[in-house]
Amino acid sequence: MGEFDLIARYFKRPVRRSPLGVGDDCALLAPAPGMQLAVSTDLLIEGRHFLSTVDPRRLGHKCLAVNLSDLAACGAKPLAFTLGLALPQADEAWLAPFAQGLLALADAHGCELVGGDTTRGPLAISITIFGEVPTGQALLRSGARPGDEVWVSGTLGDARLALEVFRGTRQAPQAVFEAARERLECPIPRVSLGLALRGVASAAIDVSDGLVGDLGHVLAASGVGATLWAELVAALSVQAQALSVQDRLDFALAGGDDYELAFTAPAAARDAVLAAGRASGTAVHCIGVIEAAPGLRLVDAAGQAVVRPVAAFDHFA
Amino acid sequence: MGEFDLIARYFKRPVRRSPLGVGDDCALLAPAPGMQLAVSTDLLIEGRHFLSTVDPRRLGHKCLAVNLSDLAACGAKPLAFTLGLALPQADEAWLAPFAQGLLALADAHGCELVGGDTTRGPLAISITIFGEVPTGQALLRSGARPGDEVWVSGTLGDARLALEVFRGTRQAPQAVFEAARERLECPIPRVSLGLALRGVASAAIDVSDGLVGDLGHVLAASGVGATLWAELVAALSVQAQALSVQDRLDFALAGGDDYELAFTAPAAARDAVLAAGRASGTAVHCIGVIEAAPGLRLVDAAGQAVVRPVAAFDHFA
Repeated sequence: MGEFDLIARYFKRPVRRSPLGVGDDCALLAPAPGMQLAVSTDLLIEGRHFLSTVDPRRLGHKCLAVNLSDLAACGAKPLAFTLGLALPQADEAWLAPFAQGLLALADAHGCELVGGDTTRGPLAISITIFGEVPTGQALLRSGARPGDEVWVSGTLGDARLALEVFRGTRQAPQAVFEAARERLECPIPRVSLGLALRGVASAAIDVSDGLVGDLGHVLAASGVGATLWAELVAALSVQAQALSVQDRLDFALAGGDDYELAFTAPAAARDAVLAAGRASGTAVHCIGVIEAAPGLRLVDAAGQAVVRPVAAFDHFA
Repeated sequence: MGEFDLIARYFKRPVRRSPLGVGDDCALLAPAPGMQLAVSTDLLIEGRHFLSTVDPRRLGHKCLAVNLSDLAACGAKPLAFTLGLALPQADEAWLAPFAQGLLALADAHGCELVGGDTTRGPLAISITIFGEVPTGQALLRSGARPGDEVWVSGTLGDARLALEVFRGTRQAPQAVFEAARERLECPIPRVSLGLALRGVASAAIDVSDGLVGDLGHVLAASGVGATLWAELVAALSVQAQALSVQDRLDFALAGGDDYELAFTAPAAARDAVLAAGRASGTAVHCIGVIEAAPGLRLVDAAGQAVVRPVAAFDHFA
C-alpha cells in the first residue's frame, strides 16, 4: 500500500472546518472574528514516549490527547490538527486501530484532521493542533502572582507507577497496575476544565514532564516562587497507595505523563475554581501557595521543609 | 544539555508575530482580517529524506524549504512555523549550524519560529508552517480546466541526478555533481512565484515526489487529463545533459525533491504567467496542455506517444 492509498484509506474523511480537507498542499483555516488560534506541536517517538508493545488504538488516543492537553492549558477550544506519521511499514493491522483511537478522540472534541504527511521510517508521530481562544483570554504561564493558590486537576504519578512496573522497579496488584496503565496509555486531556478556567485562573500549564518541572515553568515565567504541602501532593498519587510515602511523593512531584492541569488562581477565586471543576466534571485540588520569593519549596504539615531529590522528566536527560 | 536549555540556546528568539513567542503551552496566532491561514506539515526522516552525512546547515535550510514550498503552491505568504525535533543526542556541533541554516531561511521569508517540541530519538524533523492568503484566493489543485496550459518553474530532475551519483548508479563531472547536489540539499522554495500567480494560475502544486505523480494529483482533483511534450520535459533536467535522453526525461518526470511549482493557467493568461515569472525572478516553462480526457500522455515533436516506465516517488514504495 503506497503513501497516498494509506492516507486515503485511514485518514481521509469529510472535513467541515477546513475549506479544503486533507489532500491539497495546505489546509486553509480561519479563526472566527475576535479569536486567536492557539497552536501546539508534539513529537512522540517509540521507546521514548511509548513502548513498542502498546495497543495502537491507545497510542492513537494518546498522541492526540497530549496535544489536546496543551490546548487545555491555554483555555483554547480544539478545532483541527495535522498529523505527521513515520512508520516502519504500512501495516494495516496497526494502522486501522491507530486511526480509530486517534479519530475517536478527535471526534469527541470536534477536532478535525486537516492535513499531514506520511513516510517510512522509525515509528514517530508528530501532531500540530489548532484551537481557538478569544483574543487576550488565553491562560498563560506568566500570570501567577504572590498570594495566588496553586491547584492541580485529577491525580498525579499514576502513569509513572505503571512505567516503573513495566520497568520492573516496582510491583503492584493487578487491578492497581491496570488502573495506572490506563492513565499512562489513555490520558484524558482536561479540555473542558481549561475552558472553564478562562477568566478564573491566573496562570496554567499542563503537567507532562512532572509537577516540579512544569510548575517551575510557571514560576519562572511569572517571576515568583511557591510553597507546596507535601502530604497533599503525595495524596494526588492515588494508585501508588501500596507504595512508600516517598514513592507517592516522588511520583506526584516528578512522574511525567500525567496530562493534568497545574494552575494558579487568586484566593478570592476559590469558589470559581471549584465551580469550574464541577462544571467540567474534574476534581481540582489546592496544593500550595504562590510567594514572591523565587524557588519551589515543599513543607510538611508542621511547616518543616521536605527535601526530595527529584527533578522534572527531561527528554534529553 | 537538557531539553529546555537546548530550546533556549538555539531556538529562542524575539518573536513579533505570535503574542507569546516560543515557550508557553501554545503559540497564539491571528491572521489579519479577510485572510485565511494556510497550514502544512512535513516530516523528514534520516535515511529517507536526507543522508546522515548531509551538512546540518543545509539540512536546516531544506527542512523549512520543503514547507515553504507547500505555501508557495497555495500562493500563501509565510508567517510562522513550529518545529518538532528528535535527536540522537544534544550535539552542539550539529545543532548550531542546523539552527543557523533553518533560521536564515526563515528570516529571508519573514517566517517566525513560534513553538515546538524536542526529544531524544532517531533523527526526525517535523515542521508545521503557517502562511496567510486572502480568503478564496488560495491556489488549489482542483482548478485546472481543458485548454489550460501546463507550466513548470525552474528545472526538474537535478536533485535526482545528485541522489543517483551518491548511490553510485550514475557518474557526473564534479561541477555538474556540485550543481545538482546544491539542488538536492538547498532547494529554493518558489514563494514569490506562488504569490505572483494568485489570480493567474488556475491550479498549482509543488513538485516534491516527481512531476508525474504531483501533476497527477492536480489532474485527479480537477477531473481532467493532460498531454506533455517529452522534449520540453527532458530539457528541464539541466544538469543531466551528459546523460542519456531517457535519463533526462525520467529524472524530470519522476525525480523527486525538485520543489518547483507545477501549475496550470488559461492560454489567455500566458502573458500574465510570464510576467509573474519575471516579477519573481523565476524561469517558467510551458510543457503541455490540459485536456478533458483523463490520464497523463507524453508525446514527441511529431505527436507520437512516448512511453516511459516511471512513477512518482512514493515514501512507502
